[in-house]
Amino acid sequence: MPVVEFTPSRDQYVWTFGGAEPVMEVAPGTALRLWTEDAFAGRVTSPTDRPSQVLNPKELNPQTGPFYVTGAEPGDTLALHFASIEPARSWAASTTIPLFGALTGTDRTATLQSPLPELTWIYDVDVERAVATFVAHESDFTLELPLAPMLGTVGVAPALREVRTTLVPDYFGGNMDTPELRAGTTVYLGVNVDGALFSVGDGHYRQGEGETCGTALEGAMNVTVIVDLIKGGAPAWPRFEHDDALITVGSARPLEDAWRCSQVEMVGWMTELYGLGRMDAYQLCSQLCLSPLANVVDVNYSAVTKLYKQPLPGVEPYGGVHARLRERAAAL
Amino acid sequence: MPVVEFTPSRDQYVWTFGGAEPVMEVAPGTALRLWTEDAFAGRVTSPTDRPSQVLNPKELNPQTGPFYVTGAEPGDTLALHFASIEPARSWAASTTIPLFGALTGTDRTATLQSPLPELTWIYDVDVERAVATFVAHESDFTLELPLAPMLGTVGVAPALREVRTTLVPDYFGGNMDTPELRAGTTVYLGVNVDGALFSVGDGHYRQGEGETCGTALEGAMNVTVIVDLIKGGAPAWPRFEHDDALITVGSARPLEDAWRCSQVEMVGWMTELYGLGRMDAYQLCSQLCLSPLANVVDVNYSAVTKLYKQPLPGVEPYGGVHARLRERAAAL
Amino acid sequence: MPVVEFTPSRDQYVWTFGGAEPVMEVAPGTALRLWTEDAFAGRVTSPTDRPSQVLNPKELNPQTGPFYVTGAEPGDTLALHFASIEPARSWAASTTIPLFGALTGTDRTATLQSPLPELTWIYDVDVERAVATFVAHESDFTLELPLAPMLGTVGVAPALREVRTTLVPDYFGGNMDTPELRAGTTVYLGVNVDGALFSVGDGHYRQGEGETCGTALEGAMNVTVIVDLIKGGAPAWPRFEHDDALITVGSARPLEDAWRCSQVEMVGWMTELYGLGRMDAYQLCSQLCLSPLANVVDVNYSAVTKLYKQPLPGVEPYGGVHARLRERAAAL
Amino acid sequence: MPVVEFTPSRDQYVWTFGGAEPVMEVAPGTALRLWTEDAFAGRVTSPTDRPSQVLNPKELNPQTGPFYVTGAEPGDTLALHFASIEPARSWAASTTIPLFGALTGTDRTATLQSPLPELTWIYDVDVERAVATFVAHESDFTLELPLAPMLGTVGVAPALREVRTTLVPDYFGGNMDTPELRAGTTVYLGVNVDGALFSVGDGHYRQGEGETCGTALEGAMNVTVIVDLIKGGAPAWPRFEHDDALITVGSARPLEDAWRCSQVEMVGWMTELYGLGRMDAYQLCSQLCLSPLANVVDVNYSAVTKLYKQPLPGVEPYGGVHARLRERAAAL
Repeated sequence: MPVVEFTPSRDQYVWTFGGAEPVMEVAPGTALRLWTEDAFAGRVTSPTDRPSQVLNPKELNPQTGPFYVTGAEPGDTLALHFASIEPARSWAASTTIPLFGALTGTDRTATLQSPLPELTWIYDVDVERAVATFVAHESDFTLELPLAPMLGTVGVAPALREVRTTLVPDYFGGNMDTPELRAGTTVYLGVNVDGALFSVGDGHYRQGEGETCGTALEGAMNVTVIVDLIKGGAPAWPRFEHDDALITVGSARPLEDAWRCSQVEMVGWMTELYGLGRMDAYQLCSQLCLSPLANVVDVNYSAVTKLYKQPLPGVEPYGGVHARLRERAAAL
Repeated sequence: MPVVEFTPSRDQYVWTFGGAEPVMEVAPGTALRLWTEDAFAGRVTSPTDRPSQVLNPKELNPQTGPFYVTGAEPGDTLALHFASIEPARSWAASTTIPLFGALTGTDRTATLQSPLPELTWIYDVDVERAVATFVAHESDFTLELPLAPMLGTVGVAPALREVRTTLVPDYFGGNMDTPELRAGTTVYLGVNVDGALFSVGDGHYRQGEGETCGTALEGAMNVTVIVDLIKGGAPAWPRFEHDDALITVGSARPLEDAWRCSQVEMVGWMTELYGLGRMDAYQLCSQLCLSPLANVVDVNYSAVTKLYKQPLPGVEPYGGVHARLRERAAAL
Repeated sequence: MPVVEFTPSRDQYVWTFGGAEPVMEVAPGTALRLWTEDAFAGRVTSPTDRPSQVLNPKELNPQTGPFYVTGAEPGDTLALHFASIEPARSWAASTTIPLFGALTGTDRTATLQSPLPELTWIYDVDVERAVATFVAHESDFTLELPLAPMLGTVGVAPALREVRTTLVPDYFGGNMDTPELRAGTTVYLGVNVDGALFSVGDGHYRQGEGETCGTALEGAMNVTVIVDLIKGGAPAWPRFEHDDALITVGSARPLEDAWRCSQVEMVGWMTELYGLGRMDAYQLCSQLCLSPLANVVDVNYSAVTKLYKQPLPGVEPYGGVHARLRERAAAL
Repeated sequence: MPVVEFTPSRDQYVWTFGGAEPVMEVAPGTALRLWTEDAFAGRVTSPTDRPSQVLNPKELNPQTGPFYVTGAEPGDTLALHFASIEPARSWAASTTIPLFGALTGTDRTATLQSPLPELTWIYDVDVERAVATFVAHESDFTLELPLAPMLGTVGVAPALREVRTTLVPDYFGGNMDTPELRAGTTVYLGVNVDGALFSVGDGHYRQGEGETCGTALEGAMNVTVIVDLIKGGAPAWPRFEHDDALITVGSARPLEDAWRCSQVEMVGWMTELYGLGRMDAYQLCSQLCLSPLANVVDVNYSAVTKLYKQPLPGVEPYGGVHARLRERAAAL
């Protein structure tokens, strides 16, 4: 099966889900080795950088893609297995952007208060030791944080003729910003347009749950993703699979609605997998699920419902596609 | 140091935070061995029980307490170390109560739709093997779930002369319904009235994060709690300490506000512990925290911010009270 | 029928719904001439007053009452007709209180930003001309605003043994802060405890819808209220009646839930009054209702659903009690 | 000045803001006489029609337009004066669409309950008498409602390369669904792309505030709109002007955020118009504004802040453009 490499040039960066021409067509089974620029489009490089001065609000969260998947039609399920997600730089950047983030008024939670200070933290990254070093601005304090590379963004073109900025998470995936999207994850996304038109981006070398200040350890990433296609069965909301867990991700505001979406999706998935009635699935999910937040800062907030496969019966979603892609990834 | 046992008689059950006479005065340092009835006040016992018929809406979530802590004054910090939380029965009950729960309209998210079916699940509990058995209503399906005993409710009397039902989580603790409140946890609560007047209840043999359907594996519990008092330093929101983690719990609606409360509390705690400036603590918390939901069903929703002590510097909150109580617990 | 006058002394001010001894028992049919202190407990008197310095957080929103209504039992409907609501002072005060109000972070919408400036505006009130004069702090600007006297607060004791501060609006009425509560209004409240235990307070000489900055033109008020009792029929949420309109008030967070409560209450009221099915009432309410906000600043937010009696068929709610109390008021 | 007539053919209906080719270029000063199809694309015609069977989810809320305004550039302010909005049919339709509306679970407020019944109400419309007749489904009841024609939707192309369905209200206008958009209104919208690309649609013969059930008296409309352009000064949120009032409209979720957006926009507008400081404008707006809800059902909820020009000082926004367009309209 083919392995295709692609690193976008700067003029190939894509800023939307939908509305962009595909960079290439890929057949199901293709492995892609990709490079993605960071969410700042590489514009934040120094602890003295002020986001309001260096960022271009029209050029945030550049995507690598979109890829047209041969044979993908509306109602199908795109399976993307992330074989590896690895830092492509020896540093990462994080910032506080004026009126963006969870602990400040924003464009929507509109207040009359002054914005928080604009600060930039540059982390030195030691990939070998798998740590990034935080250096405080306001006191003499440093700390090594373990790396936990992930992608903030993976998505397909939306339905209803829409084009959305890559800052948005929604039913089509997008800027979900959950640490659950790491190497080893298979992502299942409903296809809305011919070819699916998926793209990836927004590498985080690590991120807390909620992405409180609005940015993670943002950094360029090398990503290996294996593309597969399941005919039909499109989920309403993104589903993930780990070796040991099933995950659903809802995105909405207020936050309870994001979480409700992920919960109803999981209850539905449980009825499919185990032949449970909806009330029984509701009860079981209520007692078993983990609910780690993803982001509480983006255009929609994102919340996760996670079920460990243990102690559930051994059922392979989508005919065992995750295990097959896992093997495939190991063989790359 | 004294060990005091107390099992309330049925007429000693308490239904409010504040407004009830203390059952006894306890000096800081006292260990209490308590028994608590389940949140249904023991009224749900069979899979054919319908909550709307067997429950008394005025008698839900009975508390054991309140206890008057010698010397506790408004502005102080009550420390409660939960040495053990153990199922006191060989079965547990869970139900769907009409218009209560996260995936239904409620008294506040008021809709015109019909309520979901009322169902009761009775779980057999095998304490030795630490499992509870789910039996489906709608299909032929059973599953053993691991026990994970916790308390849904611990709280003190509120401020501002208020009396709240034990169904409410808020700044005074209460019905937070987080699995983080398990054996080994120290809970720090701000004192609002002389004597603090704390109580405990709402044993859960296990619970998913969010308590989606509104009830957990509800069961009577044997609880050993060691009481301590820290003069001054009352936190704005409940703080928990585990051997390996610091936790804050916010309660509000919508859910993002519950989480914001826990985040601001954690940022404040980090500035206290590490001498960090607020923006640096905001940044660090954003990259390090876990954000597991607690409940999305109660009068207020509750959300958790959790920081593992690793990789943070080794600092002992409140002068190391958790470690001391841990030792004390081990010696009981 | 009796007319009873009552002006509380300062030590008779009441700070809670529930939990306070009644100041007197009144029989249905009684007219009360009352005086109420302003929400600041009279402590803000000068444009140089800073709320954080002069206010006592434990003594806000003093109530006049509570009154024990002879014969009122849980499940009954208390009818309070406000015959007159008249400014008792020649000035009013409004302020911005730190971290309180709709356009700032608060204790729940917790942020890390600095609070807005604390300012106090003192309005000269000319009762004869029915205007209050705004004087700007930041520029040379004055403006006469028309008086529109109303009460922010009317409520009964809550259910479930609770005691709530008078800052809270909820199903029991309380601090709803809607301009719809003006002279000529009959308020219907469900009774939760024997005697109902209602109280009134929080006079506003005028207020915008939403009470954005958190305070209105706060001022002491002379209030004439006629008390009546309807056996049974307790509404779930407060209902108001004007000569020309029916009104329901919901209180919750987020704001959509407050409004949903008022809408479901109105749909129910329409089915009672007109024998409509619920779907038909839903449809008619959707096309006819007004939805003016009440407050977006209090412990719960409050939203109003309002139906003009025209073009609806001429039906008299509660057997025409509003018209009878109206006549009674005219005769006082 | 030119008067241009345009009635789209069915294949000219437009389903998005942004992403559609303009139907024509119009110079500032042009008056347009337009026809718009109803939000159902004309597919609901009988009381036995079930929305899930007759509606095409990809073809809802057809727009007439978009129009390219000569000279309009990003940052400019488009002024649209609605000279007349008149029913183009002798009937209107309203429905309950499954899992859409304010008093039901939805795709986002996801629950497990069954949807409400699907019903269609067809209203006979008597334009001469200005009434529409409601006929109940569930009982023998009819009622004449006064007509109050308005447009649910007016908007421009969004920023950031986005294309949004015409179901969405946001900063670019769109599906705001407020009764304040009636004949006599001037709408001010910030321009995001060259030519502005505005369109109109979604005629309502009347609508309650909040559009509770999700649909109004939907009907085709004849609309006369005069186009004008103000260089620069783009507002962050839509502003409206009536002869007697200034209005701002915010759209977001939860509902309090929609309202906050409209409030901050109004506070800003007051500082511009009256030279007030922000805290003084905050105070004045708090005491003077009306806050009628627009919709609590769409992708974003919409809330209105409204200030009557009386008792404010006589200032003409945007150099008196509303008065000039008003005169122009009278002369058509």
